[in-house]
Amino acid sequence: MTGTSEVSPLTLNRLSIYLRSLRQLQDHGVHRISSKQLADQFHLSPTQIRKDLAQFGEFGIRGVGYDVDHLAGRLTELLGLDSCRRLILIGVGNLGRALAHYVGFNSRSFRLVALVDQDPTKIGRRIGELVVQPPARLADLIRETGAEIGILAVPEEAAQANYDALAEAGIRAVLNFAPARLRTDPHVRTKDVDFRINLEELGYYLK
Amino acid sequence: MTGTSEVSPLTLNRLSIYLRSLRQLQDHGVHRISSKQLADQFHLSPTQIRKDLAQFGEFGIRGVGYDVDHLAGRLTELLGLDSCRRLILIGVGNLGRALAHYVGFNSRSFRLVALVDQDPTKIGRRIGELVVQPPARLADLIRETGAEIGILAVPEEAAQANYDALAEAGIRAVLNFAPARLRTDPHVRTKDVDFRINLEELGYYLK
Repeated sequence: MTGTSEVSPLTLNRLSIYLRSLRQLQDHGVHRISSKQLADQFHLSPTQIRKDLAQFGEFGIRGVGYDVDHLAGRLTELLGLDSCRRLILIGVGNLGRALAHYVGFNSRSFRLVALVDQDPTKIGRRIGELVVQPPARLADLIRETGAEIGILAVPEEAAQANYDALAEAGIRAVLNFAPARLRTDPHVRTKDVDFRINLEELGYYLK
Repeated sequence: MTGTSEVSPLTLNRLSIYLRSLRQLQDHGVHRISSKQLADQFHLSPTQIRKDLAQFGEFGIRGVGYDVDHLAGRLTELLGLDSCRRLILIGVGNLGRALAHYVGFNSRSFRLVALVDQDPTKIGRRIGELVVQPPARLADLIRETGAEIGILAVPEEAAQANYDALAEAGIRAVLNFAPARLRTDPHVRTKDVDFRINLEELGYYLK
């Protein structure tokens, strides 16, 4: 694989899991691990690990395994997690507030830089270190803060208008938590997180 | 497809989306729709719709389309959404509280029936119509309420122990929001919802 070819979402999701597992190993002072040990410890497939890592030129040494620090560094770089992405959150209802406090949204690789809500009773309120801003300030906020990813946590019926506003204001990607079928912009990388679909999937298998 | 064969998770997720789209159409008084119109209105693939629905014997009539009410009824039945599944939520931190208020968790097809947290300052607190219970009551709660699906919204380090306790207490499925690699029980249908992985995926494509 060359540095410019795109990795599939499914592979990327596995690489995220490997990296997280490697970081746990680093925290425990482990410097070497075989694909088999990594697989056993984190309930993964050793064949899949070898295949995924070989794709971008990382080969474990037979009988010695992978160098944990080196591999974690390579995955961090490959996933683009060595730079910090700025996030803007739209909607500070129950879910939005939970997301604002979610530690994964304020890590080495991601930082929440702005909050927006249309509710006048919420505008001006402080959540963590940020103050909730009105929608009219959206474009300015994105420009001033350098936000690249928008987190949509608004009700279903408000999702499309807010998505369009984010796209219009130049956001580059959106993580959508609203249970709505969005008409997406081809210039905005969009990903849906829909709990209801996950729940319905589980419900089906209980029949 | 017979009634007993299993539908794949990806197909199920699409059926959930079709059903949601059909219900919106019902709300707007639409009784007939072609796969093309359905696809256009909800940004889906008409070929995929026809293929998915033909799998379980639903054929639109050429030039007339699908009967919206009939199809919605069939999908509801197929997905097992005609019965109500009971949910127990473990962990009422920020995310847990947001989930407890999430409308999708209290719908025709799903109902939150119990809340559990180990924090003594949270036990006894009322959230909506439910009172937070201690972990020692887990097995009793599942038996008394008939909860079938556990929602795990605990910190990463507490996820495995709580998952094991749910499995031990006889839960049938778990929707896991903790960013942890769980050692799953073969008798418990388990599904992870991991925002950080979704975010890392978006971050990658911004490179």
